[in-house]
Amino acid sequence: MSHDPNPLDSIHAMQEQLQKFNQERDWDQFHSPRNLSMSLSVEAAELLECFLWSKDDAPIPDKKRSHIEEEAADILICLLNFCSRANIDLPSAFAAKIGKNAAKYPVDKARGSCAKYDELSER
Amino acid sequence: MSHDPNPLDSIHAMQEQLQKFNQERDWDQFHSPRNLSMSLSVEAAELLECFLWSKDDAPIPDKKRSHIEEEAADILICLLNFCSRANIDLPSAFAAKIGKNAAKYPVDKARGSCAKYDELSER
Amino acid sequence: MSHDPNPLDSIHAMQEQLQKFNQERDWDQFHSPRNLSMSLSVEAAELLECFLWSKDDAPIPDKKRSHIEEEAADILICLLNFCSRANIDLPSAFAAKIGKNAAKYPVDKARGSCAKYDELSER
Amino acid sequence: MSHDPNPLDSIHAMQEQLQKFNQERDWDQFHSPRNLSMSLSVEAAELLECFLWSKDDAPIPDKKRSHIEEEAADILICLLNFCSRANIDLPSAFAAKIGKNAAKYPVDKARGSCAKYDELSER
Repeated sequence: MSHDPNPLDSIHAMQEQLQKFNQERDWDQFHSPRNLSMSLSVEAAELLECFLWSKDDAPIPDKKRSHIEEEAADILICLLNFCSRANIDLPSAFAAKIGKNAAKYPVDKARGSCAKYDELSER
Repeated sequence: MSHDPNPLDSIHAMQEQLQKFNQERDWDQFHSPRNLSMSLSVEAAELLECFLWSKDDAPIPDKKRSHIEEEAADILICLLNFCSRANIDLPSAFAAKIGKNAAKYPVDKARGSCAKYDELSER
Repeated sequence: MSHDPNPLDSIHAMQEQLQKFNQERDWDQFHSPRNLSMSLSVEAAELLECFLWSKDDAPIPDKKRSHIEEEAADILICLLNFCSRANIDLPSAFAAKIGKNAAKYPVDKARGSCAKYDELSER
Repeated sequence: MSHDPNPLDSIHAMQEQLQKFNQERDWDQFHSPRNLSMSLSVEAAELLECFLWSKDDAPIPDKKRSHIEEEAADILICLLNFCSRANIDLPSAFAAKIGKNAAKYPVDKARGSCAKYDELSER
């Protein structure tokens, strides 16, 4: 992929760019939150497929890298479209969820464990 | 959810915050790109489940809203963790994919159509 | 698709046929339960994609039918391979789950409702 | 799970049992093929979640086994409901797909390879 030297790094600016993109194509009619939640699952599975038969700790092969980058971008595009249509402020939702996760997974209990929060044991 | 008045809006700043979060918990050992691609599919399906039996054009019920916001945040968290571990610069990948999509879906052909780019017909 | 006049209708017989297919190709080495659970999600998403932008109550278009049949078959193949490798007797698991669902969704409470069992209200 | 000594092993008989189950609850109104394709992705992801942070070659832990059996059964239930509502004869579709796969993955080319059929190399 060619690379923009100064790509947008702001969630809200990316959403604006996407809204313009979609409006030019009159795609809002298809972009119900429900439909976009379906497309998110489809895109996530396309990324999953890239790792289907590989080993857990295998590095990403060079020949797969650009494809994987595209799948990651597709997931972001769907997620931003979803949030725009569902009236979700994603940066706020992110901040709130990080705070909630910090409470569910306190450092002293969660360190080195992949257990779910309701299975974390006392140390 | 409580709301941070000035939540991070920058992809890179969010990734830094997550990396600190993960390092404090020593979670990098679990966060192979492959494992994170699996968690992305799991989180995307949790969002999908919120819309399972609803109507396409139904508004999001108030009582489901905070749950849906959390699922959207979870997807972003997984995606940012994935990109950090897979050495993908997400803003660059996003910019490149938007450029590619603009070429695949030219406005005059794609307007008002939900067809895939290889099924777009001439007008 | 061409149609076998007497296709196998037995879960166990289908599993035997698949095991022979896989052994001839030496594919058991890839077929860990974990990998097969990934392939199940990938195949399920390919079926989902067939319905991405359609209407809820739209009939299946003729031109999509054979593709959808193949995706349904792919899901069954993955599921049967998964059960073979995970030592799950699928007919027994099915019978047990139907019994459990009958208890979770009693006819008088569940009739006409798409609510989850823990949200079913008294009538 | 309790086990039926003679569980149904026939796809068509299982479908009949499910249709009776659904009709008693008046659930056909929710079971459009599209909705059922969504529930298949949700159920597949619930199975995937069982393997999220485990190792590829790890045996299934005893304490997870009954949960995994239930998820496998849920996938079958959704798939059979889907085929009933989409007018797909699953045994025929399975037989046709096995035949197609045998042609796409000839034994001499596919043996020991996890490559997709269009990437199989000559030997």
